[in-house]
Amino acid sequence: MAGHKTLHVGLGPIGREIIAAATKSGRCEPVAAVDIDPDMTGRTLADIMQIDGVPDVVVSADLAEAAAIAVEQGATAALVATGSHVEQVAPQFETLMAAGLNCVSTCEEMIFPWLRADAAADELDAAARAAGVSLLGAGVNPGFVLDLLPFVTTRVCQTVSAIYATRIVNGSVRRQQLQAKIGSGLSEDEFRARAANDAIGHVGLGESAALLADSLGWSWDNIEQSIEPVIADVDVKTEYFDVKRGQVRGQAQTLKLVAPQGVIEMELIMALDEPSMDAVRVEGEPPVELVVEGGIHGDRATAGTVINFVTPCIKAAPGLRTVTDVPLS
Amino acid sequence: MAGHKTLHVGLGPIGREIIAAATKSGRCEPVAAVDIDPDMTGRTLADIMQIDGVPDVVVSADLAEAAAIAVEQGATAALVATGSHVEQVAPQFETLMAAGLNCVSTCEEMIFPWLRADAAADELDAAARAAGVSLLGAGVNPGFVLDLLPFVTTRVCQTVSAIYATRIVNGSVRRQQLQAKIGSGLSEDEFRARAANDAIGHVGLGESAALLADSLGWSWDNIEQSIEPVIADVDVKTEYFDVKRGQVRGQAQTLKLVAPQGVIEMELIMALDEPSMDAVRVEGEPPVELVVEGGIHGDRATAGTVINFVTPCIKAAPGLRTVTDVPLS
Repeated sequence: MAGHKTLHVGLGPIGREIIAAATKSGRCEPVAAVDIDPDMTGRTLADIMQIDGVPDVVVSADLAEAAAIAVEQGATAALVATGSHVEQVAPQFETLMAAGLNCVSTCEEMIFPWLRADAAADELDAAARAAGVSLLGAGVNPGFVLDLLPFVTTRVCQTVSAIYATRIVNGSVRRQQLQAKIGSGLSEDEFRARAANDAIGHVGLGESAALLADSLGWSWDNIEQSIEPVIADVDVKTEYFDVKRGQVRGQAQTLKLVAPQGVIEMELIMALDEPSMDAVRVEGEPPVELVVEGGIHGDRATAGTVINFVTPCIKAAPGLRTVTDVPLS
Repeated sequence: MAGHKTLHVGLGPIGREIIAAATKSGRCEPVAAVDIDPDMTGRTLADIMQIDGVPDVVVSADLAEAAAIAVEQGATAALVATGSHVEQVAPQFETLMAAGLNCVSTCEEMIFPWLRADAAADELDAAARAAGVSLLGAGVNPGFVLDLLPFVTTRVCQTVSAIYATRIVNGSVRRQQLQAKIGSGLSEDEFRARAANDAIGHVGLGESAALLADSLGWSWDNIEQSIEPVIADVDVKTEYFDVKRGQVRGQAQTLKLVAPQGVIEMELIMALDEPSMDAVRVEGEPPVELVVEGGIHGDRATAGTVINFVTPCIKAAPGLRTVTDVPLS
């Protein structure tokens, strides 16, 4: 299987993991790259990554220029790992799609962009159709554990009345950025103050629930969400944090979506020294209870989904798509 | 969500379960039906089924006639639960597709018909394209536990080197037909004699492996299969069978597919008093281990998949499709 020629937009930890995955798997062949970081631009991916097989592609500082180079090199898709919010990344997609590139993005809100950015989503859909390309948000969470996997699970059910999905991530084995993001070492008050300002908390839980409900044909009334700190009972030490008893060692987010057809409840716990696991439970006919032992690794799996959704994105009918409505193979 | 108007072909236990599921869920609205059994033809589905909401549709004895009635009533799909082998059911699909109906079938070999009936599969593909409709095999096994579910699981993996999939079905809680099919009460010699004549054994394990490998882009060299009896250590009694110690209480099938890209191993155990469970383990980056606690019910789930794959089948590009290459929602 020859790899798709790809443009890589954003060379942060996830963007670099995607390039490593693309190279290792042979599913994609990076032919162009772009980032805003002056420490990266002008250097080659091979130099930045220091991984066997990563090609000598020079990192551009300009998106339109990188898109033009990519298209000239025969690229069919851009893999975009830049921002979490639709409005942040929409102009990037517009540029990429206008150049004729399909786009797969790790942008969390793009898993179901109609939830928070309805107008922008409609504009992106129109732009994708006009350009004859597809645009897709992908990842492990959102994008798999709390949405695609529960949805696929319901495919065996004659009827569904409730879906419970849980993801527990052991922050201790993850990178510094994630340990900080979940509030490690904060006091309970600091955590709550940040949470009130949306400065803490995983982006995408609402999108997962909305994608799942929409894929089931459910029309929901409202989505309730909450976030609580997980407090350390004992001191916790990681490579990056030294959390004392009584300080925050992570976050617990919950969600409840109530639709006339049924209920979706989700729980996302990301905390230091909390054993990882993922689970889906469907109440229906038949009921189904599924457990992912040890959970699915975050960054590795996000890069995995991105490279695996390039073919589906290219094959899909033009427009703004979701991971549940593209052909998976 | 208004249901698709459907023609129901085959009113055996699975065909009737599909009608019940269609009615209960509202996903399909039966507008025509056909069977070869003279005890059924001329009667209405409501009379045969005795379930609230099942409509007064008269069961036809002739497939072409039923297809014509269905189309006249606005049906877009036929749900076919007749035979296990492609050659058996291909003429039915030809008739149904010529009438303009998309087809979803429980025919086990149709999960990946190219494995055992390559020429017939190509003819069906051509006929479907000519008629502008899609044709799809669906079910829980084959069709979900050992193929679609493992494939979906690999969507988070950057690389995959091996896939292990297991399905264990407790025959004690299933219908008489399945308990007989797995060899309950036979002597070990009788079991082996029947197995040697292909008169025992689940149809579809090879198709599951082939679909999974093909969906991954793997080109396999060979598929090895074996079947062994499961012998009762103690007497086992069910509603239908009285199995003595030393007699057969079920079957254990194994499969190994070796491809240059990796290995697929499957195990299917169907036996009386054997606790049900399904499991998928992927060796890759990241590895994933998934367990379905208590397993997924067979007949209920097969009917569930059939009604849930009607929309994907209708939406898919015309041709002979698989559950991994249609949009799932």
